[in-house]
Amino acid sequence: AIFEAAVVALAPKDLAGHTVLVTAGPTREELDPVRFISNYSSGKMGYALAKSAAQRGARVILVSGPVSMAAPYGVELVNVNSAKEMREAVLQRAEECTVIIKAAAVADYRPTERSSIKIKKQSDERTINLIKNPDILAELGTLKKRPYLVGFAAETGKLREFGLKKLKEKNADMIVANDVSQPDAGFNVETNRALLLFQGGREVDCQLMSKEALAGEILNHILAELK
Amino acid sequence: AIFEAAVVALAPKDLAGHTVLVTAGPTREELDPVRFISNYSSGKMGYALAKSAAQRGARVILVSGPVSMAAPYGVELVNVNSAKEMREAVLQRAEECTVIIKAAAVADYRPTERSSIKIKKQSDERTINLIKNPDILAELGTLKKRPYLVGFAAETGKLREFGLKKLKEKNADMIVANDVSQPDAGFNVETNRALLLFQGGREVDCQLMSKEALAGEILNHILAELK
Repeated sequence: AIFEAAVVALAPKDLAGHTVLVTAGPTREELDPVRFISNYSSGKMGYALAKSAAQRGARVILVSGPVSMAAPYGVELVNVNSAKEMREAVLQRAEECTVIIKAAAVADYRPTERSSIKIKKQSDERTINLIKNPDILAELGTLKKRPYLVGFAAETGKLREFGLKKLKEKNADMIVANDVSQPDAGFNVETNRALLLFQGGREVDCQLMSKEALAGEILNHILAELK
Repeated sequence: AIFEAAVVALAPKDLAGHTVLVTAGPTREELDPVRFISNYSSGKMGYALAKSAAQRGARVILVSGPVSMAAPYGVELVNVNSAKEMREAVLQRAEECTVIIKAAAVADYRPTERSSIKIKKQSDERTINLIKNPDILAELGTLKKRPYLVGFAAETGKLREFGLKKLKEKNADMIVANDVSQPDAGFNVETNRALLLFQGGREVDCQLMSKEALAGEILNHILAELK
């Protein structure tokens, strides 16, 4: 913590005055008290963004799904489990923010019903019915006075196509598209490569680098856009 | 590690000569490269059993699902993800073992199909078809020369009823039944209380204690039964 405090003290404070909300990690959508649907998001990219933004002087709110990392020094941590909880935590705080970065891997669907007791194993086959979760990024995109909005697109191919579709449909300012099927990018590794897509058609191709370095790049672009 | 080594050196070696296989943690059953069904098992009970058995002189094989703990000192760790992988790892090694303790929370079902690419969000509703996973404990129960078999029953009520049913159906020697709906027992907490059910009708009620203490109790009962 002493080292962290020193790093924070020495970093340029180019995000001072900004309130940056970062979402990170997976969500868990419960079937019953013990079982859930989730995904491989480790939260590393989101935590790197939160850490870097805090070091650069921003007030940082980190809305995090279940991960096995400690919160970075100086950020306000809000722990959530499900997509519905994440939506509530984000929308409650959206008006305070100048920037929102949605790095979390929010589950697209949740079980239609959650059993309050553990479901017993019975027949050889079972069916789970799912219903679409609220789309937090799209909701933020419709806010009247909205913060600078960055979304992530975790894909296993067609990066540009899916990324541009998301940029348009969600009314985001930037989409960070990355290919999670690569062994050196995406979920639960220390490195990433990403295609940054901006409103207006600009694109930046970020080659393989650490998630900390990519976090710095993303924040540089946000800052340039806000000026 | 030096402290651990000292503890191991000083503990009574009453399990020397035994090979104890412990399964621990949850399994993950993938829907596609990023999404899976899992459960809240932290692996703490299984890791406590593996640690205690190793300290008491047993050769310990720990077959572990994805958890965020390091393996205890001196155990052979085998990492697995899905129920099918866990089954293979356990059955391959069953003949070497004098005791198998199935503390893992193996998923009862897995998706019938796994998509090789990330499934895109589309309609408002979706259905997942599941098929029953192999029942590892029941398979072990049918082995001709079988080790002493301990199963766990994680329930949210009707402990004795479900535990006795499992004991009989799986041909296990002992079932450790615990109520995972209690805030101080079951998944992801440091303490547990359990009902130990034995072939022949004996029952032992273990009141609230640390998972380490319960691990010691369970091993004491196994040792007494093996003599």
